[in-house]
Order: sequence, then structure tokens, then C-alpha cells
Amino acid sequence: MQKPNVKYLADLRQAMASKGLAAVVITSTDPHQSENAPAHWRGREWLTGFASVNGTNGTAVVTADEALCWTDSRYFLQAEEQLQGTGFKMMPEDGPDAVDLIDWLVEHTSEGQTVGIDGMTFSISFAQRLEQELNDNGVKLNTDFPLFDIIWKERPARPENKLFVHDEAVVGETVDSKMNRVLAEAKGELANAVLLSSLDDIAWATNLRTAGDIAFSPIFVSFLYIGEDGRILFVDEKKITPEVKRHLDTYNIEVRPYDAVKEFLAGLPKVTRLLLDPEKTARGIYDAVGCTPVFGGAMVSKLKSIKNSTMLANIAKAMEKDGVALVRFFMHVEKEFPKGELTEVGLEKVLTALRAADESCVDNSFAPIIGWKGHGAIVHYEATAETDVTLEGHGLLLVDSGGQYIYGTTDITRTVSLGGDPTPEERHDFTLVMKGHIALSSVHFPQGTTGHQLDVLARQFLWNEGKAYFHGTGHGVGFFINCHEGPQSIRLNQNPTPLEPGMVMSNEPGIYLADRYGIRCENLITPVVAEDTDFGRFYKFETLTLFPFDRSLFDTSIMSEAEIKWVDDYHTLVRNRLTPYLNEEEARWLADKTQPLKK
Amino acid sequence: MQKPNVKYLADLRQAMASKGLAAVVITSTDPHQSENAPAHWRGREWLTGFASVNGTNGTAVVTADEALCWTDSRYFLQAEEQLQGTGFKMMPEDGPDAVDLIDWLVEHTSEGQTVGIDGMTFSISFAQRLEQELNDNGVKLNTDFPLFDIIWKERPARPENKLFVHDEAVVGETVDSKMNRVLAEAKGELANAVLLSSLDDIAWATNLRTAGDIAFSPIFVSFLYIGEDGRILFVDEKKITPEVKRHLDTYNIEVRPYDAVKEFLAGLPKVTRLLLDPEKTARGIYDAVGCTPVFGGAMVSKLKSIKNSTMLANIAKAMEKDGVALVRFFMHVEKEFPKGELTEVGLEKVLTALRAADESCVDNSFAPIIGWKGHGAIVHYEATAETDVTLEGHGLLLVDSGGQYIYGTTDITRTVSLGGDPTPEERHDFTLVMKGHIALSSVHFPQGTTGHQLDVLARQFLWNEGKAYFHGTGHGVGFFINCHEGPQSIRLNQNPTPLEPGMVMSNEPGIYLADRYGIRCENLITPVVAEDTDFGRFYKFETLTLFPFDRSLFDTSIMSEAEIKWVDDYHTLVRNRLTPYLNEEEARWLADKTQPLKK
Repeated sequence: MQKPNVKYLADLRQAMASKGLAAVVITSTDPHQSENAPAHWRGREWLTGFASVNGTNGTAVVTADEALCWTDSRYFLQAEEQLQGTGFKMMPEDGPDAVDLIDWLVEHTSEGQTVGIDGMTFSISFAQRLEQELNDNGVKLNTDFPLFDIIWKERPARPENKLFVHDEAVVGETVDSKMNRVLAEAKGELANAVLLSSLDDIAWATNLRTAGDIAFSPIFVSFLYIGEDGRILFVDEKKITPEVKRHLDTYNIEVRPYDAVKEFLAGLPKVTRLLLDPEKTARGIYDAVGCTPVFGGAMVSKLKSIKNSTMLANIAKAMEKDGVALVRFFMHVEKEFPKGELTEVGLEKVLTALRAADESCVDNSFAPIIGWKGHGAIVHYEATAETDVTLEGHGLLLVDSGGQYIYGTTDITRTVSLGGDPTPEERHDFTLVMKGHIALSSVHFPQGTTGHQLDVLARQFLWNEGKAYFHGTGHGVGFFINCHEGPQSIRLNQNPTPLEPGMVMSNEPGIYLADRYGIRCENLITPVVAEDTDFGRFYKFETLTLFPFDRSLFDTSIMSEAEIKWVDDYHTLVRNRLTPYLNEEEARWLADKTQPLKK
Repeated sequence: MQKPNVKYLADLRQAMASKGLAAVVITSTDPHQSENAPAHWRGREWLTGFASVNGTNGTAVVTADEALCWTDSRYFLQAEEQLQGTGFKMMPEDGPDAVDLIDWLVEHTSEGQTVGIDGMTFSISFAQRLEQELNDNGVKLNTDFPLFDIIWKERPARPENKLFVHDEAVVGETVDSKMNRVLAEAKGELANAVLLSSLDDIAWATNLRTAGDIAFSPIFVSFLYIGEDGRILFVDEKKITPEVKRHLDTYNIEVRPYDAVKEFLAGLPKVTRLLLDPEKTARGIYDAVGCTPVFGGAMVSKLKSIKNSTMLANIAKAMEKDGVALVRFFMHVEKEFPKGELTEVGLEKVLTALRAADESCVDNSFAPIIGWKGHGAIVHYEATAETDVTLEGHGLLLVDSGGQYIYGTTDITRTVSLGGDPTPEERHDFTLVMKGHIALSSVHFPQGTTGHQLDVLARQFLWNEGKAYFHGTGHGVGFFINCHEGPQSIRLNQNPTPLEPGMVMSNEPGIYLADRYGIRCENLITPVVAEDTDFGRFYKFETLTLFPFDRSLFDTSIMSEAEIKWVDDYHTLVRNRLTPYLNEEEARWLADKTQPLKK
């Protein structure tokens, strides 16, 4: 069975031949290094046929005789299946049979040959590594091969969604203030101008948002120049409403067409020292720059990661709204479960609708993970028509979801027992996970402490019984931007970023027993000052998320008094904060769910 | 008041002028990058007058008009005082007023000038950094200026202590096996020969030791070449006894004079790819190499860090001997304390003698730290005639000490209360420290876990009350070699080395209240397999050290059942292991000290 991809591949090889290219490398990203690219930049998916609604991770390599697509172990089965009959072969980028893409390229090209890439879809760093290895072997890299402009006849347009202003009263900081801080930081790196490519950095800096450009995040396709000589937003003009125009005028931000960015950069004088983040900026941008490039710029992530007091107050509001939606969701689950008709996909729709019922909720913050029994043990499970199951018998239901509220981004995981009493093993494992969650939530730590120094607190109780989870304990969370953001994290891997007040992170230990159940308990937390002592300043975490944990899953016989008190205090807080927004029936339900734990 | 150093300095400047040097940099180390150099290489101390019996940390810079000596905050007071009248000025290398030595040099030299160093007392890495920065500014580096050969008229000879064989039955591995393993690892780094410069690496590889070359460690001055073409020990022939000669002959190790190493290296053919560790090898050695140098070699530390089962069995023996010495020491302290005549310096002598009473104990493993009350709060306190105090009234006594036994190196800290009941605050702080000690001792952790991932376990209880200590929790410990060794550690700083069975480390959390008291609780620990589960292999720590903690200092009201059980179980182990070596009175004393904790 031959698929249309065979034809696309032939077109590509013809284009390669006409440009004298021995091989081409194709990534899944866009000119902004987005994790989820808009359809316009999903050329690798179109070409290979290895694709899904929420995007797939893959990097293709095509030579005269070979067509390969690298992907990671999450996608091995899907890629094998989808690549059948396309002319492409799957290559493992991790696992025991992993093949290094660059090594493969070096082995399959020879001196004097040229490899082509579309420089706009490679970071400066990745292209640099690739070029170095190829050059060491006498092979050239052509970074100006925009293959999809040539071979993709029915390429989707770039997104044309309208922008809107993220109200300053909600954000607590003017665009002037943000851009001045960015420029001040840039001067610290001896630059006098900055080009931002990363869409969440631009949304943050401009106080602008949209809906629909990128799934699950209200960011929009653009470039932003901030210089002493002016500010320019490169964006499709169709996206600009009169309100947005007024906002941009207020802050002296000129609008130029999205496609004009390269020409603008080419014309900058040598005295302009332009800061570019080599991880976030496309090689194609770097190639276009006529002024003096300066590599650096990680500071925009840092500035963005620190939420001010207005933002934190609004996040509290978003958490209340999210908690209310979850009360309604889990009440629905409890009421409907006995009828035996609940499905994972059905529940996803219910949950999405309950969040969207609040007008401040623009979108989910990621594709909800609703896993029943063994599906809960698949860390990145996403129910589809093919995998969907009906919730029957006894089991654990894992629900990991979040919303994009204009007041902040939420991300919460709860695991609940349905259909009769949980087993002692389920309760034991759940309690080990919660003990870790509580230990991390409760710790005080000196100023300067990093996430990797705290991570073990969440793992210790599992480890002490020879159990473990293999993902990070916490990721950074944006403010009505991306649900995953840096630079902060709480992981075993080293991360030099000290945890500071204003940073929002998840606390999500878990345990996964294949084909049986998955347990994950996730709240968002933020550092606050705990005390100043002779030993310096100490921080502790404040919990932001508001929804009870399933009391039936706690085994209090392995909990300390302090741990039990933490749960009871948290549940009291949840009840006090949410009850004012609930009707009588809902309030009764929550009161029941937040009773003290039984010893 | 002018000191003789003014004359030495004039001689140095004359030597510099005759060589055309604008500046000279002088370190405190020897050609082996030893932390404590033998007297022969203590030229920087001789020149500047900033010196102590156990060595000081300092780096001097002399130009035509300036003479400076950099040191760290531990030595600021001492250096200021000792440098008076020498012509040298103290420069801070850390703290708020820190000045970077290389930056200073760059600012105070100009294009075309030359800076001189004795390349034998600079690591390849440090010299490389220095040279790079100077060259960037048009200044040359002359690495062949052996200034002390020129100006130090009464320079002490190199140490001439006799070597002895560290019995293979104690070590559990032949020299052949060790050297073959080193060469096999070197081949993994694409080398076919290795030059070892680090004295603990050489002592390990040759199963040879001495006493007196370097304070507190039985290592000896030498270089070792291991090639496919032969093995050569470069060592003063006076150090070789007939027994040692037979040992060397057995393993085909040729002996050549210490001074012949450079000539030998100069004559090696290009096909010899010689592995040099740039952190441990002198620049002067690198300059002499005639063959192809390969940088690497951290693997010798790694091989050395893993103790085999024979070594571990012998360490158990050393721990019993050490425990017995400590029983006698603390019985002495208790008996003599009421007379009011005990002093820190006096106790150091008693403790040293009690260890030395066992013929397998060759030396202390470091200068004992015996600190009464506020002195215990000085982390690196060393009692001298000037600082010594008599133990009177009520207080805490901190004793941090260890022995170099042929069966292994020990390092233990105990904090005891003397002169009446401890205060509630003392008991509270002691118990917080012990809770951390116990948490680290008790944790299970997956294969691949590193020390910085576990460190917080020892700190969490202090942190939760806004308290902290500012040193690492654990350092690696050698086997009858250096008491501090790498690559393993348990610190907040990142260290990529996974903790593995056979590694010996300290577990020594503490708390220090200036002018009041210091508390530190230190045992040595080693990873052992805890269990293999569906989640992989897990390790736990076995405690090696055998001596009770002061029961009067525990506040059981803030301890969990599991923590109390840990202490009681440990005390039972100590009693069972030590009692066979004690007389009746000692056994009674130990039985009393190892009773279960009172709740």
C-alpha cells in the first residue's frame, strides 16, 4: 500500500537534486522553536505521514536512497505504523537501539557533498553542532533550503487569529517596564538591542495574547525587536485589532509585517549589538543579521518566571475558578459512575466544558490526561477513540488537566478511587506519593537553593521501599502563557537556577504500575519567605492549587502527625476558599470531601 | 620591624631581573599537586613568612614594585599578622573584597612583558588558564623559572623516609591487577601509557606506603609510569628497602631516580600516547613530554574510590580498633573532667597516644579538632598553645579525629555534653543534627543516584527551623591513604559521580553557634545493595564507624519511632562489635552508654 507521501518524497528529491544537496534534515519546529508548531510549519508531519492532532516529535533525514524519521520511545509504535507505505523508515532517537542522527549523517555523506536545511526551523545551537560535525568531515551545510515553500503545494496559511490585550490590571506591570527591564539586562550582557523569537517571551513582553495560534497556549506568531532606537513587533497585520493598535501605540511599538524581520535585521548597523538566545533563535535569523550578534539572553526566561504580587493575587483567583470546575467535575464522576457509561473521552469533554463555562478560561492548558486503571500508568496518556474505555468495576482514575485563565495558568493532577474500597496496596502507594508531596510542600530552604537539591524529598518514601517514578517532580508554570516554562524546575537533573519567590512550579510525584494503575498528586506551589535567621533568609512553599485529595486513599497508619495535619489544614483551606463560589449541594459535597482524615 | 623575608624578596627580584621577568607567581603546592606539601616545597611559606605547621593556603605574586600573597578567609587574620614586616601584602581570594589573581596580573603587566612560574608547582589546567589570559593581553608566560633552586639557600632536602609494602592480604588486590586495570582504562581514552603524579594514586597503584613524607597520609614522593612497554617508579633510591625492592621486582617495576622523570618523558617516542590528568599533573611535566599527550585520567580516582571486599573487611577491623581507642578516650575525659585540668591540647595528645597504642595505627588521619564550647563552632579549629582552654563548667565538647590504620583510614566526630545536664537548646539542636544524620543513613536510592541528590536529607530538619551548616555533608575517604578523596561526595554542589558499593564516605551534618557551641555527628558509610525491584536496583548505606552518640543529648520528643530505633540498633551493634576487645570496666562503661534511648 503506497501513500501520497511517496510522491512528496519524489518531489523533495527532485528539489534536492536541483540544488545539489546530498541530504536534507527536517525538524518538527517553527521559526520560534515552539514545542507545538502551527499547521503551517507541520511540514515534517505532512511529508512523512507520522502525525497527530497535538503534534509528534520527529526529525526526518532524506538522501538519494534513504528516507528516515527519528523519534523517541513514546512514539515508536505510532511511527512504525504511520510510516508504513510512506517510503520513510523509523529510527530510534533513544532506548537501547538509539542511533545518533548527526553520526548517521556523517557516515552517509562524503567529502565535498552538501547537506541542506531550512535554517528557519533549526536553533542556532543545533545548526551549529550539525555544521561543525559535517565540516569536520569535509561536508558543507546549506542553511537556506526552504523545502516546504517548494514542494508543499497545499501548505496551510499562517494563523490569522486576532490578538487581544492582557489587561494591565491583571498583569501588574506595563509593557514599558518589561521592555526596559529586558533592555537593562541585555546591557548587562554588553548588548544594546534584543531580538525575541520565543513566542511566550514575546507574549510576556507585549502583554498581548491570542487564541488558536498554538494549541493550549495563548501565544501568537511574531518576532519582537527591542532596541534603544525603537521597538518593533513583526506580526501579520491581520492579527491587529484597533484595540491592539492603540495598545502598541501607547508603548511606541511599531508594527511591521512578519516576513519583514530578516530584511530589517540585515539592515541594522554594525554598532547595534543584538542579543540572540542561541537555543531559542533560528539559524535563519542569525544568517540574516547584518549587525553584531551577541549570544546570551536567557534572562528573558528568568524575568518571565518571577510573577509579581498582582499576578500572584490573580493566580489565586484562577485557582478558585479551577477548584470550582473540579468540584463540579468530580461530583459528576461520582454521580454518573454507577451507571457504567462514563468513558475517558467523554470525561475529557465534560471537564473541558466545565472549565470553559468560566468566561475567563480561554483554553485547556494542555491535552487533559484522563486515565482509568492501567491507562493511568502511561505517563503521557491521551485517550483517543481507539484507546477509550468505559469506567467499570473498581479502579483508580488519574486526572491531569489545567486551564488557561486570563488570571493564570493551572495544572492539577488528582487520583481518585471509584467502584468500592481501594485495595491496601493502592492506599499504601498513594500514601507514599503523598508523603513525598507533603515533604516537598513543607520544607524550608535557604535562599540560593535550587530545585535539584530538593527533589529527593518527594522521592524518599518511595525509594525506601524500592519504588520510583522516572519523571521530574516539578516544572515551571507560566502566567496565562505556556504551562511548561523555565528556567526553574524541581528535578534530579542539575539546574543552576535558585528557586525564588514569584516562581510557580508543580509538585507532582507519582507511581506507575504497568497495566494496573497510575497515581500522581500534583499541586502548584510558589516560594515565599519563611523567616530570616542568624543563618540567613529561608523560603518555604505556598500551595496555590485548591482541590481536595481523595481521603479514601490515605493510609494514616504510615503517616506522621505532622503529615496528617498538613492534609487536614490543606483541606480546610480548600473548603474555606471554594465554598463561597458553590451552591448548597456542591458545598455539602466539598465539606464531606474535606473532613479531617481518620486515624 | 623588618623580617628576613625582605632580603629573600630582594634576591627574588634580582633573579627575576636577570631572567627578564616582569612578575612571578608562586603556589603552595609541589610537583604532585599535594594539598599538604613536604617542607622541600614550602618555598612560598618560607618566602612570605605566612606559614603554619600543617600548611597554609596562599599564592604569591611578586613584581618589581609589588609583593602580594592571596589567601582565603580562613587565614585572613593569620596572614595579616604574619605578613607584617615581610614586604608582602595580603590579598583576599574570597569574601566581599575578593580580587582575582589573574585579573590583577593582567592589569599590572603590559604587552611584551613576561611572567615567570615554576612549572613544576602548577597544574596543567591552572597554568593553561593563566597563560591564556596573559597571551590574550600580549604577555608571555615562562614556565621554567625554578626560583627556589636559585634563591632558597637553606632549602630542606626532599623527604627520605623508607617505604614499606602494604600487605596484599590487607589490600586484596595485586599490583599487577591494579596496573592492568589502569592501563585498560587508559586504552578506553585512546592512550597506551599513563603517568601518575598524584601521590595517593601512586600509593594505591603500587601497594606501597611510608610515614612522614606528607603529614597525616602514608603516601610518598614519586612519579609512576605505566606503559605497555614497562612500569617505572621514579623515586629517591634512599627510600627503597630490600623488601620494597623485592616487591617492585615481583611486579616488574623498574626504579629510576626521582629527578630522572623529565628526561625519561622527553625520550618517549611519538607513538606513545601518554595519559595525563590536567588537574593532577604539573605543567613542568607536560612541558617535558616528548611523546603524544592525551588529557584525561580521572579514572584512577574512580578505581581507587571503590574498595574491594577484602578492604571493606579490613576497614571493619580498623573501625573496631578506632572504637576501642575512643572508648578509652571518652572514659578518660569523663573521669578527669571533674578535676578541672583537662585542656584541648592535652586531650589531643591523649587521643593521639590512645590510637597509636595499636601497632597498626601509623598516624592521625588529620590534625584532630578538639573544640570546647565556642571553639567547637569553628569548623576547622585546631587548638594551639595560644588558643588552648581548660574544660570547665558545663559545655559541649566536639571531637573530630581519625587514624591511619594499615587496615583503613578512620574519621569520626562525636559531640558530648560535660559538666551537668545539657540545656534544652543543646539537646534540640543535637537532635536536629542526628535526625539529618539518620535520614541520610537510612535512605534507599536507585543505582545512578549522586551525592548532591541526597544531601538535603541531612539538612532538612535544620532548614525547617531556619538553621543551617555551610559545609558538605560527606567527603570520600581513602583506604590507608588520604582521608579526603574523590570523586564521590555528598554535597549541595553538583557532582556527577554516582554513589556505588565500595565507596567510603562521611556523613557529618552539624550546627555551629558562634562563641557558644558546635555540634557535628560523623560516621563513615558505604553503599550496599538494598534490593532489586521492578523499578531497578536500589542501594542503601551501611554504617562503618563504631562508637555511641551521647544519649544525654537526644530529645526523643521530636524523634520518630523509626529514628529512635535506628539509634538503639546502632548502639547495640557498637556494643556487640567492641565489647570483645574491652576489659570489664570498659565493657561496663560501653554497656551504659549504649542503653536504649529513654522516651
